[in-house]
Amino acid sequence: MTDVYKEKGYDAGRIGFGEQPGVLVVDFQTGFTDGRFPLGGRPLVVRAVENAARLLEVARRYEIPVASCYIAYKDERDTPYWKVEAVLKEFRHGHPCTELDPQIHDPEYDLVFPKTGPSMFFQTPLVSYLTKNRVDTVIITGCNTSGCIRATCIDSFQYGFRTIIPEDCVGDLDEGPHRDNLRDVGRRYADIVTGDEVIAFFEDWHLRNLR
Amino acid sequence: MTDVYKEKGYDAGRIGFGEQPGVLVVDFQTGFTDGRFPLGGRPLVVRAVENAARLLEVARRYEIPVASCYIAYKDERDTPYWKVEAVLKEFRHGHPCTELDPQIHDPEYDLVFPKTGPSMFFQTPLVSYLTKNRVDTVIITGCNTSGCIRATCIDSFQYGFRTIIPEDCVGDLDEGPHRDNLRDVGRRYADIVTGDEVIAFFEDWHLRNLR
Amino acid sequence: MTDVYKEKGYDAGRIGFGEQPGVLVVDFQTGFTDGRFPLGGRPLVVRAVENAARLLEVARRYEIPVASCYIAYKDERDTPYWKVEAVLKEFRHGHPCTELDPQIHDPEYDLVFPKTGPSMFFQTPLVSYLTKNRVDTVIITGCNTSGCIRATCIDSFQYGFRTIIPEDCVGDLDEGPHRDNLRDVGRRYADIVTGDEVIAFFEDWHLRNLR
Amino acid sequence: MTDVYKEKGYDAGRIGFGEQPGVLVVDFQTGFTDGRFPLGGRPLVVRAVENAARLLEVARRYEIPVASCYIAYKDERDTPYWKVEAVLKEFRHGHPCTELDPQIHDPEYDLVFPKTGPSMFFQTPLVSYLTKNRVDTVIITGCNTSGCIRATCIDSFQYGFRTIIPEDCVGDLDEGPHRDNLRDVGRRYADIVTGDEVIAFFEDWHLRNLR
Repeated sequence: MTDVYKEKGYDAGRIGFGEQPGVLVVDFQTGFTDGRFPLGGRPLVVRAVENAARLLEVARRYEIPVASCYIAYKDERDTPYWKVEAVLKEFRHGHPCTELDPQIHDPEYDLVFPKTGPSMFFQTPLVSYLTKNRVDTVIITGCNTSGCIRATCIDSFQYGFRTIIPEDCVGDLDEGPHRDNLRDVGRRYADIVTGDEVIAFFEDWHLRNLR
Repeated sequence: MTDVYKEKGYDAGRIGFGEQPGVLVVDFQTGFTDGRFPLGGRPLVVRAVENAARLLEVARRYEIPVASCYIAYKDERDTPYWKVEAVLKEFRHGHPCTELDPQIHDPEYDLVFPKTGPSMFFQTPLVSYLTKNRVDTVIITGCNTSGCIRATCIDSFQYGFRTIIPEDCVGDLDEGPHRDNLRDVGRRYADIVTGDEVIAFFEDWHLRNLR
Repeated sequence: MTDVYKEKGYDAGRIGFGEQPGVLVVDFQTGFTDGRFPLGGRPLVVRAVENAARLLEVARRYEIPVASCYIAYKDERDTPYWKVEAVLKEFRHGHPCTELDPQIHDPEYDLVFPKTGPSMFFQTPLVSYLTKNRVDTVIITGCNTSGCIRATCIDSFQYGFRTIIPEDCVGDLDEGPHRDNLRDVGRRYADIVTGDEVIAFFEDWHLRNLR
Repeated sequence: MTDVYKEKGYDAGRIGFGEQPGVLVVDFQTGFTDGRFPLGGRPLVVRAVENAARLLEVARRYEIPVASCYIAYKDERDTPYWKVEAVLKEFRHGHPCTELDPQIHDPEYDLVFPKTGPSMFFQTPLVSYLTKNRVDTVIITGCNTSGCIRATCIDSFQYGFRTIIPEDCVGDLDEGPHRDNLRDVGRRYADIVTGDEVIAFFEDWHLRNLR
């Protein structure tokens, strides 16, 4: 099968890591990670939580900025026109489905905030936090690939960051949309790598900074 | 094939049209609409230009706000980390590929501005324009579905607008990503309709306003 | 004294109320309203709390959207380069100085969120909340006039809203900067009125909507 | 006269220069710099143009990013609720009052864009340009101190930048509001210095980077 995008000059080269990484953890709230909830516990998300947990452990050890978010609303008045029933009815402040999964969360270390849109950048303190810490390389973990990861990736790119997605640290309800969205953003906005490649970069970065 | 998203409560109901529509025209610049350019003239985009032109003619007749944008940069310093060669090298202010396609553009009527990211909302005057004109329903036309349409749709939703995509008024380089992205956003953020349905709404809206 | 601004065409006419009001309550947290805290309990702020409380009571009765915010940070990493000692050291999540003053707060009714910058719009869900509720007229109450009120007023104007400041519902540490800032924004961006004028508009608006 | 703000811990310490400066030039368009126009040619603005021109010459020599903007609208539909007559009626795309003053503008070097609000950051490509170039220290020049400089300073601070205003490189219609606003922001958000101090920093920064 010919790839018309590749032919026309999409996916030309790699962006690469920069000088100061930061890690985003998108919506690893129990509503998505835990099978108790209607949208929760899907295999790709469970896998992503495990891989992200390993990556985050290294990030925190080397004092790399980490920010984590979850979706929550007060009521209908501050909820956008979602077509997803569980989000409309259950993703409310204080509901158990808005709690961060303990496997990926360190309340002492991580900056945490709620968000109201798919993008972790949209109307949240994220971009100021990255600027204050001089981050130029954004590593995106979390879920779902075809929803909030896609939206967060677009904003990271738009703001001028080098954007890196370790594909085994992001997950979705199903494989098709997971792959389709990595394909779309990998052609245009972001490098698609593995969690191990990011960890290797962190190790290398740490050694360079020690010198 | 079972659709796990549908099963889990995605694509629940329709958003519907509201009280004041506005129309967005995303990146119908010759770089995408005209076969002279490496990314230009693809069949789905040519089709979208024709259908959007009809829709826009009705919108302008009824004084519905219309905003149109194109991608252009000064040089490497203000260009984000694109992986698309033509965008990196040719989408510069003053380059012919940044001119709006005359079929969809009325310089007297439309608000026009350049943009630097995929989303038409990102760091552009668009949201203030919509607020000033009390728009609550955003109709999105343009290209490409798997790039700037997707990004613009996410932002329209995040800002709290009713978001409507007439699928025959948006286009892409290839059919797969066109469909995949309409599927993703139609499940979550937007109603996918036809250009004719939007025109019928405009006619009805106009009559209601006359009374 | 000649006013060169007036002479040159500043302060030309009144903006006026529109069709759908919303009320903002900026930083009426105990850190500013309560004399227990270093920046708290100044006379103009105490007066503003009382007047805003009356105005808010009417707003809630007529189901006008109300949003309230406070300043709070996690640690130095998410704090911008403030030159105000108490903000740097005490305005942390969980600190008593970040609690909303009970006189102006109804937890059942008001949308509440923390903010990290002076403007209540900056990286908060506010603009989406106003869009979703079709607000076109923003009433600003809170403190301090020469800090967060000024910043919030600029953003309300920039987003395309009709911006109204009831001057007896906003306060500051001292009178000079309070007046200077109302002068600056009243010339350019906002109508400076009284709390009673806003209440009268609410009453009138409510009656019109009943019909 | 006691300064209650100083007493309460405002204006505590200096922010200082960081590692990568960038220079903003706010609204040095002929509408403000040239006496032909109703708001133009005021002494403090003429002085600011001269001092900013010297500073910019050094910035460009050392390849420090420079961005410049001007206010312009299409028509009433994209104009916010300004209370300033000349802005409402004359600041239109193509009008001579929207041309940048040639004394401060190098079209080859500077990034230039229109803006619709007082803040140079509001819905413009500025923050992405600063991020892409890893700027952490924003030097603000331009006019007017009590309008667009104030708004731009607030946003620079909010985004997490070190914000520096050389007071002889910003101007206003009259001295009172010029001073009042430098007082307000110097207490909270920014260091108020002179153009010569900034130039000395640029020289020093250049030497450090050569090593």
